[in-house]
Parts: sequence; structure tokens; C-alpha cells
Amino acid sequence: MQSQRKALLLSSSNCHGYSLLEFAKEEICKFLGSNDVKELIFVPYAQNDFDGYTKKISDVINPWGFPVRGLHTFSNPIDAINSAKAIFIGGGNTFLLLSRLYEKKLVELIKDRVTSGNLLYIGSSAGTNVATKSIHTTNDMPIIYPPSFDAIAIVPFNINPHYIDYVENSTHKGETRDQRLAEYMEMAHANQVLGLREGSILHVNGNSLILKGIAGAVVFKRNKDKTEYKVGADVSFLLEGN
Amino acid sequence: MQSQRKALLLSSSNCHGYSLLEFAKEEICKFLGSNDVKELIFVPYAQNDFDGYTKKISDVINPWGFPVRGLHTFSNPIDAINSAKAIFIGGGNTFLLLSRLYEKKLVELIKDRVTSGNLLYIGSSAGTNVATKSIHTTNDMPIIYPPSFDAIAIVPFNINPHYIDYVENSTHKGETRDQRLAEYMEMAHANQVLGLREGSILHVNGNSLILKGIAGAVVFKRNKDKTEYKVGADVSFLLEGN
Repeated sequence: MQSQRKALLLSSSNCHGYSLLEFAKEEICKFLGSNDVKELIFVPYAQNDFDGYTKKISDVINPWGFPVRGLHTFSNPIDAINSAKAIFIGGGNTFLLLSRLYEKKLVELIKDRVTSGNLLYIGSSAGTNVATKSIHTTNDMPIIYPPSFDAIAIVPFNINPHYIDYVENSTHKGETRDQRLAEYMEMAHANQVLGLREGSILHVNGNSLILKGIAGAVVFKRNKDKTEYKVGADVSFLLEGN
Repeated sequence: MQSQRKALLLSSSNCHGYSLLEFAKEEICKFLGSNDVKELIFVPYAQNDFDGYTKKISDVINPWGFPVRGLHTFSNPIDAINSAKAIFIGGGNTFLLLSRLYEKKLVELIKDRVTSGNLLYIGSSAGTNVATKSIHTTNDMPIIYPPSFDAIAIVPFNINPHYIDYVENSTHKGETRDQRLAEYMEMAHANQVLGLREGSILHVNGNSLILKGIAGAVVFKRNKDKTEYKVGADVSFLLEGN
């Protein structure tokens, strides 16, 4: 059965030269508006100040015509997801976020509701990482041990958010992002990786994947050079596997 | 019983302005020489090219008077560790390294041999991360899921190798190192963190911890500002717990 998934996967909420989420305003409004969303459930689990984080996001999105409510304010998050039309999972720490999603038994539930077309998914940074097959390509520090690196798997590949190229002239000897991703691509279990530059958005609509936003992306495949894609590019081929 | 541990924990093998391991030559030679080491066993598990990686390290350390042999060239790594006097665990990917150490049942064995004073330990980068209580503060990408984040625990705190301060003027919106470490310090299970700048070495001798090398380090404790320590500083207080 074809997946009915509808998702907007943002590289980040912040983008140089823009206020919070401003670069994504048009896409978010179109995405929620065209699907007649009355309330957006915000998932603040990637950070620790649930109220403060929800307020920050609500202060931006509420004025766009979409009331925001934190998932943590519902007595039962499973019931809340079951009756929600749209969720937004925000950034922070990917390991913390995934651990909490497992703890609250939301991973499979969100996957089922999104793939059956009953739940719209917006993710940013860590919220984008957990929407993919696994969190193997997060940039975050492993501050907590989750029960698995497998994630919601709305898409069957990996995403590296905040993707950035090698910094010329740096005297720092830590690995570059491309070196880190190359290490991953050497693993037998590695999936393809979409590196979303800051300002980039992946628009998922069933089997159509289109790059939106104000910056492009890069695709890493096993034993191949990385390939650049510009805003507007169709990257649906990522659904075909390695 | 007091631990008899003897270890040199390097932030990295490479340091700006120096050839491979050159900045650490004096400390490594003193450490191995004063303990009458005839052969150094190199553990290349953090990378995939075991022969190539071992050769690279051997080409540097052999001329210093210490023949190097890769752990992967022994038919039984457990027997090899049991009869070794000194090991050097090199850098690469911390998750890959720890997964392989667990797979080969070396985590507890190395811990026992080091704490009883029968095995000298040199670690660099990922090899330093796995020498600590857990790998929660590695900078590496989680390219493989290890059976635990708990590590060899030669020391009861965490180390962040390649420690670097916030880069002013950066337009990139990914978290800074200090933000990442602050996220960790918010966890209930967080240990103290020693941030080793590139060029920094922690010399562990029983209950004495001294900073060596050519760069200092930073200590993060819960609810406290970070504190800078210079080369030569005694940081044995890190053994006292949070």
C-alpha cells in the first residue's frame, strides 16, 4: 500500500538572517492551511523546559493562524496523538527526544498515524532526525542511551540536519561533517543520507519528495561522490533505497 | 583498594602545528620507558583499515624505541590483552570502537588489568572517550548502536576530547560545544566533564591526575560555571565525584 505520509522536515528552526522559523513560514502555512488544521500539537521533548519551549514556538506560529498546544499539557499523550491532526516535533537533543518518544510509546503510534495519512508531521533538527529511519546521522551529543537508534521511519533513509561543508582554514583537528558521514557510509547497515543545509526543508507527500525553503541539500550514497541538489529539486529517488 | 591505574589520555593524535603524536612524544616515551615496556599493543578498532592505521601509528612510535603491534594481528585478543604490558587505543569513531570492544569482550578485561596496575593505557580521542565512565560526551556521530554507553571507566568522570570554545561570528546555528555539554549536565545521570583542548593530555597515576601536553583543559560541574586549568594543573579532585 502506498504511504499517505505528509511531512515537512526542516533542517533547523533557526536560519542566519531570519527570525525563528521565518524562513519556513510560507511552507508551514501552506502545509497546515491546505489540510484544514485547527490546532497544532507541539512536542517539546528534545529540550527540558517544556512550557518555555512550547511558548516560544506558539508565539511564532499562533499569529500565523494556527493555535499551538504542547503535548505535555495533555493528561494522556497517546490519546492526544490519536486525536491530533498535526504535530510539530522541535529540535534540541535527538537522543533525549527519541528516549522520551520510546518511553511514552509514541514511536510506532506516530509512524502508523502519519503513514496512514491521518497525521501531518512537521519536524525540525532533532524532530527531523527522529522522522527518519534511524538517528545514526544526528549531530547531537549522546547524553542519554535510548532503547534503540531506530526511529519513526516516516522516510526510509537518514537525514543530517544543519548540514555544512568542510570549513577551510580551520586549525581544529576534529572530524569534518563529511568525514563523519563517510564513516557512517562505511557501515553495512548504512542508509542513504540527505544532508539538509540550514534553511532547507524536505517536503514529503506520499512518494513525492521535493526540496523547499531557501537552501539546498546534498545526497550521500555508498561508494559515490556526494551530489548537490537545489531548492525545488525532486529527490523522490531517495525512496528507492541504496 | 586504591586503583593502581596508569594512563595517558590524549585529546587527539593530531595537533595544529605538529606532526602525528609529536606534541605527546615526551610524555609517551617517559610513560612507556619508565615502566620498562618492550612492546606496545595498538588497538585500531575505531577505524576500519586496521593494518593501515596500525602502520601509521607504528611508523611514528617504533622509531621512539617502542615496537608496535596491532591487536587485530593476534589470533586471540583476550589472550593478547592478558599478556600485554601496554596498549594504545587510537581515535576514530567512538561508537564503533566501543561496540567492537564489547563484541570482543574486552571492556571489563581492560578495566581489570589497568586498575590492578598490570596494563598501561594510552588513549587518544575515541580511545580517551572509552577510557572514561561512559561515552556520553563524545563528539562522534552515532554510526552504530553499542550495547551500552558505559565504557571502561578507568576514571569515574567523562572527558570531551577536541574541546573547543564557542566560535564567535559563526553564522551556523548548530549547537556550540558548550551548549552540548550543558545539555548533558542537565541529565540526572551526568558525571563531571573534563574538556581536553587539542594538545592536552591527562596523566593518570593511581589517584593523581595531572594535566600535561601543550594545552590546558576545562572542567564542567553541575550548576557551576566551567573552570579553566593550565598545563601542569593537578585535577585529582575529579576523582571525588560530582
